Amino acid sequence: MSNALPNEQPEKIYLPRTSESESLKKIRHTTSHVMAMAVQKLFPEAQVTIGPWIENGFYYDFDKPEPFTEQDLKTIKKEMVKILKRKLPLIREEVSRKEAQRRIQEINEPYKLEILEDLEDPISIYSLGEDWWDLCAGPHVDNTGDINPKAIELETVAGAYWRGDENKQQLQRIYGTAWETPEQLAEYKRRKQEALKRDHRKLGKELGLFLFSDSVGPGLPLWTPKGTVLRSVLEDFLKQEQLKRGYLPVVTPHIGRVDLFKVSGHWQNYKEDMFPMMAEDEEAAALEQGFVLKPMNCPFHIQIYKNELRSYRELPMRLAEFGTVYRYEQSGQLGGLTRVRGFTVDDSHLFVTPEQLDQEFLNVVDLILSVFKSLQLKNFQARLSFRDPASDKYIGSDEAWDKAEGAIRRAVQTLGMNSFEALGEAAFYGPKLDFIFHDALDREWQLGTVQVDYNLPERFELEYVAEDGIRKRPIMIHRAPFGSLERLIGILIEEYAGDFPFWLAPVQVILIPVSAVQLPFIQEVAQKMRILGIRAEADASGERLGKSIRNAEKAKIPVMAVVGAKEVESNSLSIRTRAAGELGSIAVTEVLEKMTNAIANRENF
Amino acid sequence: MSNALPNEQPEKIYLPRTSESESLKKIRHTTSHVMAMAVQKLFPEAQVTIGPWIENGFYYDFDKPEPFTEQDLKTIKKEMVKILKRKLPLIREEVSRKEAQRRIQEINEPYKLEILEDLEDPISIYSLGEDWWDLCAGPHVDNTGDINPKAIELETVAGAYWRGDENKQQLQRIYGTAWETPEQLAEYKRRKQEALKRDHRKLGKELGLFLFSDSVGPGLPLWTPKGTVLRSVLEDFLKQEQLKRGYLPVVTPHIGRVDLFKVSGHWQNYKEDMFPMMAEDEEAAALEQGFVLKPMNCPFHIQIYKNELRSYRELPMRLAEFGTVYRYEQSGQLGGLTRVRGFTVDDSHLFVTPEQLDQEFLNVVDLILSVFKSLQLKNFQARLSFRDPASDKYIGSDEAWDKAEGAIRRAVQTLGMNSFEALGEAAFYGPKLDFIFHDALDREWQLGTVQVDYNLPERFELEYVAEDGIRKRPIMIHRAPFGSLERLIGILIEEYAGDFPFWLAPVQVILIPVSAVQLPFIQEVAQKMRILGIRAEADASGERLGKSIRNAEKAKIPVMAVVGAKEVESNSLSIRTRAAGELGSIAVTEVLEKMTNAIANRENF
Repeated sequence: MSNALPNEQPEKIYLPRTSESESLKKIRHTTSHVMAMAVQKLFPEAQVTIGPWIENGFYYDFDKPEPFTEQDLKTIKKEMVKILKRKLPLIREEVSRKEAQRRIQEINEPYKLEILEDLEDPISIYSLGEDWWDLCAGPHVDNTGDINPKAIELETVAGAYWRGDENKQQLQRIYGTAWETPEQLAEYKRRKQEALKRDHRKLGKELGLFLFSDSVGPGLPLWTPKGTVLRSVLEDFLKQEQLKRGYLPVVTPHIGRVDLFKVSGHWQNYKEDMFPMMAEDEEAAALEQGFVLKPMNCPFHIQIYKNELRSYRELPMRLAEFGTVYRYEQSGQLGGLTRVRGFTVDDSHLFVTPEQLDQEFLNVVDLILSVFKSLQLKNFQARLSFRDPASDKYIGSDEAWDKAEGAIRRAVQTLGMNSFEALGEAAFYGPKLDFIFHDALDREWQLGTVQVDYNLPERFELEYVAEDGIRKRPIMIHRAPFGSLERLIGILIEEYAGDFPFWLAPVQVILIPVSAVQLPFIQEVAQKMRILGIRAEADASGERLGKSIRNAEKAKIPVMAVVGAKEVESNSLSIRTRAAGELGSIAVTEVLEKMTNAIANRENF
Repeated sequence: MSNALPNEQPEKIYLPRTSESESLKKIRHTTSHVMAMAVQKLFPEAQVTIGPWIENGFYYDFDKPEPFTEQDLKTIKKEMVKILKRKLPLIREEVSRKEAQRRIQEINEPYKLEILEDLEDPISIYSLGEDWWDLCAGPHVDNTGDINPKAIELETVAGAYWRGDENKQQLQRIYGTAWETPEQLAEYKRRKQEALKRDHRKLGKELGLFLFSDSVGPGLPLWTPKGTVLRSVLEDFLKQEQLKRGYLPVVTPHIGRVDLFKVSGHWQNYKEDMFPMMAEDEEAAALEQGFVLKPMNCPFHIQIYKNELRSYRELPMRLAEFGTVYRYEQSGQLGGLTRVRGFTVDDSHLFVTPEQLDQEFLNVVDLILSVFKSLQLKNFQARLSFRDPASDKYIGSDEAWDKAEGAIRRAVQTLGMNSFEALGEAAFYGPKLDFIFHDALDREWQLGTVQVDYNLPERFELEYVAEDGIRKRPIMIHRAPFGSLERLIGILIEEYAGDFPFWLAPVQVILIPVSAVQLPFIQEVAQKMRILGIRAEADASGERLGKSIRNAEKAKIPVMAVVGAKEVESNSLSIRTRAAGELGSIAVTEVLEKMTNAIANRENF
């Protein structure tokens, strides 16, 4: 960026999400119909199923014996452009169920018949001119001519199951995108390209941070030495912050009896997301007498709280654990580090009196914000994840929910945070304040979370002796600034595009000798650095200088120190950093001091 | 100890284990027969089963409807003394199976009949005078008069099952002990008493280090904040040592597919010790398609090794993880921290070339010895745990086993270690060098282990590219200096009797004010200490001084600093340590410096 010429900075193009733009909703929904019409024109044997808009475009699922090829996509696109240019009107019609059935049978589309069964009256139909129609609730543009043919693109074909059920027919899903202007499409493609470069799965492999193994299982990352350093630095950083703020570290098992999760309500409300039970035999299995992997740490921290009768003097009690939990995500939904089956939550449960709730909640938000700042994550919103009052998937009384949601609203107001409410996004035991982070490519990621919980204290009958000697019920705050180490690292890799800030980088400095003569010197300097806690490597590969420099660049090591005869003589290092380029020759003592400071202050070097 | 008067130190009485003393074997075996004879005299309805010697005494299992009371034990003991005083000869007789059957039927002892079925010819019988006999292989003393009535004791009654099978009859087991001299018995009782005081379950509770919860499950400890500090200090200590020695930290999941453990051989050879499989449904269970909790970390570290083609330049590669593993111990065998179902192994797997094996093995032993030294554990032996050549519970070729056992023997010889060989104690994949530690009460504990393994590299087809470009097989060393954090902490609690050395203690210093006036001063000093990494607490309880001091003593905090007006004025602390008593008034700056040094050098304050 420092090399960018003035005035060459392109104007930033804002790309709305479909959910934010009525216009995009119409364009994308219509384009998906146009695509289906084009497909059926070219492949009359293809049967259509569903074709919704999604955040970045749309898709449509087809039942067709032969797989779509890359070439097919091009032909379909051409056909779509023709349809757009025909300026076909989109005509909405309401018909009786019987009439809808008749029309479907006429064109022999069995999937539509199934879809019809789930629809409520009135049944609406959209026609594209006179050639093609679909069951659809809309909305659509008025005319295919309203869609710019230069602002649409077909992207990929993927497998899908009818109704998402892997026991049902396998379908082919074509993904596409559509925008208001060709400029938007170009920006979208640029971001997609950039996202591909930043893909943490790709970078994670190139930088040697983690791996997956078929024999271990999907969604279960194994961390290499370099990735483990990343984890440890992040853990230690948060542990230090927590120590300052009076958190108490604990360690708890990864499994517990099923009964524990019955008391917590996980077994009843969260079982689908849990790994199967471990039972000795069928009888034990039938009686649900067995162990399960923990999907959350709360019931365990509660056991520690409950181990003694607590006094108000001990509250707020902030039990903290980097607790690894396991959730049985569908294997199809797993991807890199952001959706895994085993992950380490930077978890804490705060047991507080009602009087302490508001202040402790604010303290937690303050901690989270300071963590984000250290990680250079700037662009986020607060999502108030509340319960959907219409759903019965929650535990606890209305009163408890109202109180908890109230506490979250008060905190967000006090802090004047940029926020929005999301009904139905609460945990089953309580509402949450989630931090939604927008990355460099304007993608949304969920980071840190804080939850207020009146329900688990009730279910576990938690108590404390208040100042007046009466036993009272504490309130719990669940919180995780990172969310999980895995997810955070995945997001950081993408946000930094693999260029970790100095304090976080698995290898911070590489010392490269101009020739073998300087090897003893760089090994001595590397050793000095390591003693000071600087993660330094001496390049003893014997490669040519150019090759060594390229290797260091590929490994995205933040600081490179080239050492020739001059540097040895003057006891200095010729420093080049990824953040600021060539810094020239600097005395070793000065480098050591600056690096130590940069690490302590979590700054760049 | 520093207060003991000269010449009052009693001569240390050596207590041999039964397995080490032919004389004790005879005494204890005979005493168990004498007890059975006494029981049947007093309770003719009691039927006898088996009555072996054990390491500290003997027991005998009886089938008797009414439970034995404390009073019964006294009466039985009196009867036993009478039998001893009758100086009955022990007469050995060999009889035919048929004759044995006849005699058993005559006295109506159905259990003996069952025992007889398992015996091989010739059948030997021991009679006590003419009144009582038992099926027995001996050995025994010649005459009950050889046993000193003042050197025997009956201890407790416990439940037991016939043949250890909980589906069979419930029996009553009486435990007793017997020695050569009354002095030995007295020393035994003293040690038992002392062991009770040091019991880590009792002290762990009193010091608030860990807890068990019925809802979580047996053998699954939960670590309180204080216990977690202990764990962290031990972990950090070993991590530092490992960093210096070129170990590379990794992190791996707690579960893996069953298939992974089939390749490693755990599924075939270690399944009994593993938690039940997690399978989605019965079909998956039948096909063994599921996940299991890892009982060991090796297969996971192997996956990381295998992730890339390795060069000889990368070896030895020392992958290290504080890896929590789960083993399905019988719930009856669980006890405190020394026998648990979930524990954290300070694990490492070293992948080495054949040329590196001997030196790396020695380096590992050197690390283990230096760890023991820092922990002030002095009294240990090396147990060479080799395979039992007669058993088929091992994997791998004879050649591989011979090579691995050879490497262990060479290391022990090179180091001139006090050692012994134990056949049948190997892991199923390789032989081990185990460190057997004798504690202050002369009890044996197994600590650290090193294993040489030619078999898993074979099963997982591990390779490295040697200097000559040819792909070769590495050898693995498995090692764990602590064994496990849980076990080590259990043993340390008992060895130190809860008095942790300064650098390890969860709370290192407590600052106690003489009155509330000094509170601001001690809080300021405590804060200074914490910034330096000293675990300090300021006593703000408002209790009387005497009470506060007693609380600190009960909590076994190594350093107590009492602060009155004089101390505030002179900016000093009046120090009392558990290790060295009163140290008088010391300037705060000096205390801070000395404490920082003591922690860095892992010394007492």
